[in-house]
Amino acid sequence: ILLRLAPGVDPHTHKYNTTGTVDSKFGFTKTTWEEAILAAMSAKNLRLIGLHMHLGSGIFETDPWQQAIDIILEFVARMVKKHGMPFREFDLGGGFGVQYDVNKPAPPLSTFAEVITTALTNKCRELKLPLPKLIVEPGRNIVARSAMALYTIGSIKNIPDVRTYVCVDGGMGDNIRHAMYGATHEAILANKPYEIDDQTVTIAGKFCESGDILIRDTTLPVSNTGDILAVADCGAYCIPMQSNYNAVLKPAIIMVRDGKAKMVRRRETFEDLTRCEA
Amino acid sequence: ILLRLAPGVDPHTHKYNTTGTVDSKFGFTKTTWEEAILAAMSAKNLRLIGLHMHLGSGIFETDPWQQAIDIILEFVARMVKKHGMPFREFDLGGGFGVQYDVNKPAPPLSTFAEVITTALTNKCRELKLPLPKLIVEPGRNIVARSAMALYTIGSIKNIPDVRTYVCVDGGMGDNIRHAMYGATHEAILANKPYEIDDQTVTIAGKFCESGDILIRDTTLPVSNTGDILAVADCGAYCIPMQSNYNAVLKPAIIMVRDGKAKMVRRRETFEDLTRCEA
Repeated sequence: ILLRLAPGVDPHTHKYNTTGTVDSKFGFTKTTWEEAILAAMSAKNLRLIGLHMHLGSGIFETDPWQQAIDIILEFVARMVKKHGMPFREFDLGGGFGVQYDVNKPAPPLSTFAEVITTALTNKCRELKLPLPKLIVEPGRNIVARSAMALYTIGSIKNIPDVRTYVCVDGGMGDNIRHAMYGATHEAILANKPYEIDDQTVTIAGKFCESGDILIRDTTLPVSNTGDILAVADCGAYCIPMQSNYNAVLKPAIIMVRDGKAKMVRRRETFEDLTRCEA
Repeated sequence: ILLRLAPGVDPHTHKYNTTGTVDSKFGFTKTTWEEAILAAMSAKNLRLIGLHMHLGSGIFETDPWQQAIDIILEFVARMVKKHGMPFREFDLGGGFGVQYDVNKPAPPLSTFAEVITTALTNKCRELKLPLPKLIVEPGRNIVARSAMALYTIGSIKNIPDVRTYVCVDGGMGDNIRHAMYGATHEAILANKPYEIDDQTVTIAGKFCESGDILIRDTTLPVSNTGDILAVADCGAYCIPMQSNYNAVLKPAIIMVRDGKAKMVRRRETFEDLTRCEA
């Protein structure tokens, strides 16, 4: 096993996506690290081979990794000397921020890689520790930008001097990220990709609450009922958090490559929805 | 049909549950009411018989109904006189607040009923309108307090001087209300119902984010792994918003009456989870 330690570092992301601070349900708090290591080392049914940490999700800064690596490696050096603690693997978790907003670029993965490997190498050299096997978990970074959600535009509500709501046939049931985290996405009209997007609109879903917004105050060309809205970067934390709120059926998932399309998940039916009911 | 009008009244509830204000995706904005009525009245395939409104959800005040009834009936009186608009039914929507927190009592339904019927009767008399058929939609008020969610306590993380997390085998996947709205619930240890609840704890779920909290800073007796936590008032907006986040299976639903239990929805299986996949 690896033991998960909470390094007490704030990665400055959404509070729901902050997982390595002191006040977190995740990981051992610093005051209990030594006790946890000793318990794991002395348990007959466990074999401790290293440590794990996870700072959070959607992190745009590299400093938190640098800080957390230093904090944990200093602890490791003490434990290796004091107890002969094994440290063959070090899992630094994920959380490498992804660009969702055209105006908010994320550092490239290579920047995170450079900072992490440099910090790890330097600190191990300083503390005379052998380099552990390094593990990272860049889940969102791999899949977030791989998927696009397609919606059909239904009614459009223009409230003069207030806001224009462009309503689509999906929403928080298939993408709860805005409602949950205030997250944003970019979108285009797939059937009018080259028209000038000079209209400021809010994309609302069809679910029965005001929080059911997909994108607040984005720009689109003039939209009409029946237009297809393509929302970018829906590959992470949209599908897994889908619900059947309002008895809305989950959409199909199609994979596309080299001009070929393959359905990997079919659209739900009402039979699926009631399958578990007595 | 009934036409839904947004009366522009703020019911002072969570912003996600406010549906009758001017800046809302729901209902016709006041400036378009007359046009909407005329369009509905002149459409050959529609028969307008009245109006609908919905102020929001979880409302603890009665004034907003009074205000909205006055605003809409004054419009109705003008439209009846000017266009002979039909007004046989008036649907006032729902949103009657429910007590989730032992310290925050909601007005009884009879108070809402009294305010609404008095306002409607008085205003109709003043405007010389015949009384319409009154419709209300007290969904949450009927079902919220009918259900209780049972969890098994797993690990307990005590961070001295910070917080104690009591972790359970469910969470935001079956009840997203705290994560979404900051909502709260009361809870007891079902296997120790009479022990003194003098421990301040936070109930955390097993899903992979820090927002996965069921109840923040509640009181329980001393909890142990294996204790059964009963969370009250889970009958509304918990089950419909369930997800399979982290591939967690949805729990069974049991109805209980007069000492008899009946399973109305069985627990999901992994086969259910992957049923739509190709």
